[in-house]
Amino acid sequence: MKMPIYKQVFSFFLSILLLQSNAVSCVLMKPCKHFVLYLHDITYDGDNAANASSAAIMNPIGFGDFNFRKFVIMDNPVTMDENYLSKPVARAQGFYFNNMKMNFNAWVTLTLVFNSTMHKGTFTIMGANPYAMEPTRDLSIVGGTGDFLMTRGIATFKTKFVQDSTYFCVEMNIKLYECY
Amino acid sequence: MKMPIYKQVFSFFLSILLLQSNAVSCVLMKPCKHFVLYLHDITYDGDNAANASSAAIMNPIGFGDFNFRKFVIMDNPVTMDENYLSKPVARAQGFYFNNMKMNFNAWVTLTLVFNSTMHKGTFTIMGANPYAMEPTRDLSIVGGTGDFLMTRGIATFKTKFVQDSTYFCVEMNIKLYECY
Amino acid sequence: MKMPIYKQVFSFFLSILLLQSNAVSCVLMKPCKHFVLYLHDITYDGDNAANASSAAIMNPIGFGDFNFRKFVIMDNPVTMDENYLSKPVARAQGFYFNNMKMNFNAWVTLTLVFNSTMHKGTFTIMGANPYAMEPTRDLSIVGGTGDFLMTRGIATFKTKFVQDSTYFCVEMNIKLYECY
Repeated sequence: MKMPIYKQVFSFFLSILLLQSNAVSCVLMKPCKHFVLYLHDITYDGDNAANASSAAIMNPIGFGDFNFRKFVIMDNPVTMDENYLSKPVARAQGFYFNNMKMNFNAWVTLTLVFNSTMHKGTFTIMGANPYAMEPTRDLSIVGGTGDFLMTRGIATFKTKFVQDSTYFCVEMNIKLYECY
Repeated sequence: MKMPIYKQVFSFFLSILLLQSNAVSCVLMKPCKHFVLYLHDITYDGDNAANASSAAIMNPIGFGDFNFRKFVIMDNPVTMDENYLSKPVARAQGFYFNNMKMNFNAWVTLTLVFNSTMHKGTFTIMGANPYAMEPTRDLSIVGGTGDFLMTRGIATFKTKFVQDSTYFCVEMNIKLYECY
Repeated sequence: MKMPIYKQVFSFFLSILLLQSNAVSCVLMKPCKHFVLYLHDITYDGDNAANASSAAIMNPIGFGDFNFRKFVIMDNPVTMDENYLSKPVARAQGFYFNNMKMNFNAWVTLTLVFNSTMHKGTFTIMGANPYAMEPTRDLSIVGGTGDFLMTRGIATFKTKFVQDSTYFCVEMNIKLYECY
């Protein structure tokens, strides 16, 4: 009577192991890390070099009315709250460009660079950012280093402030599902 | 006589588990999702703004004869078949640039953006695309959101049509090996 | 007396399996592949087309003194040792740009393309590269194809040589933690 029970249990383990050694297909439970950060972007306009932390390398007009081909490089401060004057906890280094004829839309890649006593390391966020059409946008977190070694997850972007065409603040809701 | 058998079985499971908890090293079986999509690119040439869905931000000449430094931003329609007039199921948002002195070669990153009743979500493809030298090219799928949460895999590109320098169609054979 | 032992062992396996099916949280042991490569970059300066393997598409001045907005596209040779004349084992295709007001800093993405009898395949490295501030910099390896199918890991960059503004050599210490 005992044997069949053990066999069942073994075959249960075996099926789980085989599922795992194939393509993984399972329900994600909870993020292993979850926190919220705020990115502040002041784009260089020719006069604000002291405060600006991003700059267009290119902005040709004439293909639609929504800045298609505007390409901006950044080294933006990242804070723990919405206040631009708060102490930065990271830098957001990367770029974005506008790429839609009929509306404002951005495609963005940025690496969050942490270099403090609390956190050292980086992780990189990338994807489409349809900021004029969707109140919240999910982007992919594709890899990391240091304290965020090999991490993966989702960053949900939400625009908090826009001031003229020179300043915006984006809330980044970071959910890491793979931590090592 | 029974004990040794159980011990063997346990040590078998243990070795598999240890292999998994270390760096994973195993043979991939089958994709968890597999489908084929077609990307259509009409590049802006100054006259075709109504139909164009991509545009060069830069195209300086003088370093080789193969468009080295041409940099194109896109918001291209993606369909289920090769027909440009078919209803798009996604947009391909991203960029590519030519980067070889001796032949045509591209480096590309694009995010497929699905926003229909059937699929909501994105995933991002990136890598080298030596379209003039290889009939099929494998690129990496590095992350996703929504219906494609955290996905990874391979996209095999195959050029289907090229018309002058304004239109091309690429078959994208999508194999996702990690689905959640 | 036997049963409790088996139960303990089963519950041990079960707890490990449950940990794995949730978000993975564990200590990484050793890379599944580990090797060192050297990237050689000769940037096009208008006169060196025969030797150059990278070229700026853009280099506007006037926002800080550290080339903020310089954007370079590359198809650089990669060798097994520091000698520029050694036979290339791969090409490094991608781009980098400078993005800091107060110091030299780069943000880089490149795909290593292997196409020899020894190795066929690619993997892509991306992230911040603060080369003027840190002797070694960790970047993320986010995906791969062919012999490096689906790989992930860390690339540690270390500058080996810099000659004027036209040549540099970077040691890339490649540690792959996921191999299939």
